[in-house]
Amino acid sequence: MSNKKGNISIHTENIFPIIKKWLYSDKDIFIRELISNGCDAVSKYKRLVTMGETNGIEGENFKILISVNKDNKTLKFTDNGIGMTEEEVEKYITQIAFSGAEDFLEKYKEKIGEENDIIGHFGLGFYSAFMAADKVQIDTLSYKKDAKPVRWICEGGTEYEMDDSDRESRGTTITLFINEDSKDFLEEYKVREIISKYCAFMPVEIFLENECAEKKEGEEEKSPVAINDVSPLWLKKPSECTDEEYKAFYKKVFHDFEDPLFWIHLNVDYPFNLKGILYFPKLKNEFELVQGEVKLFNNQVFVADNIKEVIPEFLLLLKGAIDCPDLPLNVSRSFLQNDREVGRISKHIIKKVADKLNSIFTNEREKYNEFWDDIQVFIKYGCIREESFYEKIKDSIIFKTINDKHVTLKDYLEAAKEKHENKVFYVSDLEKQAQYIKLFKEYGLDAIILATPIDNNFISFLEYKDTVVKFNRVDSDLSDVLKDKEEVETSQEEKDKIVKVFKDVIGEKMKDYKVESLKNENTPVMVLVSEYSRRMAEMQAQFGGMSMGMNFPEERTLVINEKNPIVQKVINLSEDDANKERVENILKQVVDLALIGNKALNAKELDEFIKRSNELMLELL
Amino acid sequence: MSNKKGNISIHTENIFPIIKKWLYSDKDIFIRELISNGCDAVSKYKRLVTMGETNGIEGENFKILISVNKDNKTLKFTDNGIGMTEEEVEKYITQIAFSGAEDFLEKYKEKIGEENDIIGHFGLGFYSAFMAADKVQIDTLSYKKDAKPVRWICEGGTEYEMDDSDRESRGTTITLFINEDSKDFLEEYKVREIISKYCAFMPVEIFLENECAEKKEGEEEKSPVAINDVSPLWLKKPSECTDEEYKAFYKKVFHDFEDPLFWIHLNVDYPFNLKGILYFPKLKNEFELVQGEVKLFNNQVFVADNIKEVIPEFLLLLKGAIDCPDLPLNVSRSFLQNDREVGRISKHIIKKVADKLNSIFTNEREKYNEFWDDIQVFIKYGCIREESFYEKIKDSIIFKTINDKHVTLKDYLEAAKEKHENKVFYVSDLEKQAQYIKLFKEYGLDAIILATPIDNNFISFLEYKDTVVKFNRVDSDLSDVLKDKEEVETSQEEKDKIVKVFKDVIGEKMKDYKVESLKNENTPVMVLVSEYSRRMAEMQAQFGGMSMGMNFPEERTLVINEKNPIVQKVINLSEDDANKERVENILKQVVDLALIGNKALNAKELDEFIKRSNELMLELL
Repeated sequence: MSNKKGNISIHTENIFPIIKKWLYSDKDIFIRELISNGCDAVSKYKRLVTMGETNGIEGENFKILISVNKDNKTLKFTDNGIGMTEEEVEKYITQIAFSGAEDFLEKYKEKIGEENDIIGHFGLGFYSAFMAADKVQIDTLSYKKDAKPVRWICEGGTEYEMDDSDRESRGTTITLFINEDSKDFLEEYKVREIISKYCAFMPVEIFLENECAEKKEGEEEKSPVAINDVSPLWLKKPSECTDEEYKAFYKKVFHDFEDPLFWIHLNVDYPFNLKGILYFPKLKNEFELVQGEVKLFNNQVFVADNIKEVIPEFLLLLKGAIDCPDLPLNVSRSFLQNDREVGRISKHIIKKVADKLNSIFTNEREKYNEFWDDIQVFIKYGCIREESFYEKIKDSIIFKTINDKHVTLKDYLEAAKEKHENKVFYVSDLEKQAQYIKLFKEYGLDAIILATPIDNNFISFLEYKDTVVKFNRVDSDLSDVLKDKEEVETSQEEKDKIVKVFKDVIGEKMKDYKVESLKNENTPVMVLVSEYSRRMAEMQAQFGGMSMGMNFPEERTLVINEKNPIVQKVINLSEDDANKERVENILKQVVDLALIGNKALNAKELDEFIKRSNELMLELL
Repeated sequence: MSNKKGNISIHTENIFPIIKKWLYSDKDIFIRELISNGCDAVSKYKRLVTMGETNGIEGENFKILISVNKDNKTLKFTDNGIGMTEEEVEKYITQIAFSGAEDFLEKYKEKIGEENDIIGHFGLGFYSAFMAADKVQIDTLSYKKDAKPVRWICEGGTEYEMDDSDRESRGTTITLFINEDSKDFLEEYKVREIISKYCAFMPVEIFLENECAEKKEGEEEKSPVAINDVSPLWLKKPSECTDEEYKAFYKKVFHDFEDPLFWIHLNVDYPFNLKGILYFPKLKNEFELVQGEVKLFNNQVFVADNIKEVIPEFLLLLKGAIDCPDLPLNVSRSFLQNDREVGRISKHIIKKVADKLNSIFTNEREKYNEFWDDIQVFIKYGCIREESFYEKIKDSIIFKTINDKHVTLKDYLEAAKEKHENKVFYVSDLEKQAQYIKLFKEYGLDAIILATPIDNNFISFLEYKDTVVKFNRVDSDLSDVLKDKEEVETSQEEKDKIVKVFKDVIGEKMKDYKVESLKNENTPVMVLVSEYSRRMAEMQAQFGGMSMGMNFPEERTLVINEKNPIVQKVINLSEDDANKERVENILKQVVDLALIGNKALNAKELDEFIKRSNELMLELL
């Protein structure tokens, strides 16, 4: 064959069913699309008035009215926007994918400039009406002088019919004759629910009326209330918003009774458009499963909640609204189209959040300390998930200590330098480790509190980031730091004897035995667990290493306090065979009590109990 | 205007950019679409051979070859399928949305019958090539006698060019000239990854070659291995699959080293088509976060993992593959279009899973008992989430008891009828409640073990379902069941005195004090917690009721054992002022020990410890 040129073509009868049936993921969406079209019609009209292309009507209120009529099985969308002439209906409605919005923007490009509040883009939205209706009717009257009202009717095929309409006022009414499968959309509550979800912040007031609702006799006509908020707070300049407005917006949108801790108002014009508010919620309690809610909008039209591509996953712990008119959404607005663009938006949001946190850390340190309990999980999770966030925020990470201070890692290491260089002691459970905290305080040492579920991972993360600093739990190997300066004069021979006496009774339960001189003589023995072995044992419990034939027991060291009277008495008694059983029991008792000290009773009760037990046993000897 | 009729039209130049750019959510998808087209081309050819429309070539192997060439920046898809004539190219390629697949099925409708293995549907998939390429070239030779090879080239606009091709063998090659933004698709590993994800079970063998890879000298040509498995196990008849095949398929697809526990092979022809295998995995350990993986296929083409609409959420704890050619997918196959259809599929899967479990329960009870630990979380979660599942499965729910039996609720209630009607005692922690379990065994009572995290919810669910049966933890109010038959002769006056002595020392910590005669005289006191107050306290801890100003403490009852020697001695000593302090200490000690009994040490150690403590204290008196 000879070289041949041609044109790719598309037949309406092939593509029309696809657009009607398979383009949109969710039937509900037709309501969003038709209301968006109504908003655009109003926006265009207002633009024309502003540009002086037509005279506006003094004091006219713009609105979109949705009318449900269960008896007639119709759902009507009425706007008082720009309207269409016969020619425009033929151009924008009967030519699928010819976008009236794009056409308008093109025509008035110079006068409109950068600011674009028109939602439409693809020229396909109107056809979503056929997802729920077999027959669709348009009645429209253009703003143009001497324009005649037009009616357009399509029964779902590719044929349409046009005629004069009886519409008298400017604007457009789209009437959907709802099909059998879509009866749900004749329920007022259902339609209200969908509008509240998708259109809560659209720029024109939206009203819903039920044409079949009986008006009770004597009942006064209530003036209707718009479903939506036409100028959401995120669109205002941050400098013009008051704290009260931010709080009220938060409470209303997220149905929270409590004020948020603080917020970040995002307002970017370049290199992309982005507006929004991110709130840091107050946590109800420390174990609460943090579940945020970040709503994504595209020109005030709701797209979806918690889109991971735009909002980095760790920010989904927050609550907020992000409006990005530049979002690269696909034709059905159901998903994002362009990774690169989206990545830039996401990076910008991370940066802004880090900036805000650093600014509070630097300028309002008291407030930051106060917030810390509420924001720490968010920050720690963010650091682990997003390296770039960690790099920005790392100097603003703080820790609460057992002495009720808030310190950075640098502060802590600096203060502890003399006593334990590059070693961070931490508490993971204030109750269970109460005995050790007491000990630390007696010795004038400090330890940071890492007691949230994420802290295990966070410790590993910090150790990975800085391989010099090591984290040790307060019940780990403390021999370096806990020695009393004024040692008792116990000979090595005596020490060996003490170890032997204990070891004979306690045996393999302890990997190691040490005799030390502790400050508090009331503590006979103390159990320490090597940090590494404990972490391995925890991992084993978490991932079930046992079933893979491995076994990592915790390695324990028994520290025996040579200054304690029980210990001293026991040593002297042990030679006497008559007391053998008694001594063995007391040794076991003393070790068991130290083990209990790791777990049960609340701090105060446990303290009393152990003291009393030891006193009682002393009397026995 | 007079009534006017017209036709809705669509202009190719308007819709073409939408199809190319905005239709598909994910660029990767073009590879899936072009391979699907290749598979269809092969399937059609094979059909024609089967139908005798053309003579096949003896022993011909069908395949699709993907060739990456980084130097030329091309990605080629070659099949040896049906091929196209010049007319067919003009019909199927240059007419967008004219589906060649639909056309073929229509043409051979009668001969093909019900069985449809053709993937294509909308006639749009080919154009996804333009997501990654600016220029696309087709070289094709039809199976038809005397057919001439045809070349078709399109540079991304709506114009195309056609010419003779130099292709010599039957089939089609589509060459993509990859654009700058899509360079990733010139990486062999990336292409392999996408094919492995979407095409792992497509019905024609797929090979990948890197045209730029240097062959090392002396290296022998390895015979290439197909990336995919053309006949996945789920397509075979269940009666023709061996256990070994099921296990091998599981291990390969889900990268698990362990065998699954059992599986369900779904094979439905009516009222919809559904094939698939669901596996119950063995849990690594009881705390494992169960995370399943159910892959959804549409005619052997991967759609997505874990689609909640089709696979009920609780079944996502399982692993498996579901192939449903009847899935109502949208044009980009990214989401589901029809709730009703999808609901039916979902219901059917639930029914099949319940049938299988009931059948193992009835016919292989031993095996069922053995599996129970691994499947209980799944079953309980399923009951709570899906009422219909509960209704089907409820008689197959079993419980392990402290006496190592597996019983249904009915079994348990029947056996306990005499002792505690409609009351189920349960253990939530075998270690912490060890003292109470011992007690239950001494009294010849049984209790079920409900120790997984979901059991709290499950208990509430069962109580909601059957309002007569009440669940009580083994440390709750036991006064009815624990009384010793042979009571000690303690007068009411003496009992009152015992209570007073304890109450004076212990005070408000206990809501109630009772004197009982317990079987085991070594237990001086026992702490019971009212079931209701404990549940409220747990809820409070979970939901942070404190912050809402509420407070629900656990209500404890101290049961004092009149047979215990300590109790008896204490009573006699308490009159004596000289001993006051000693007696108070012992009473506190005894109660604290009972409280410790609820929490710390492992069962055996705790037992020994408490026994020893009490013995020691007895000596003190």
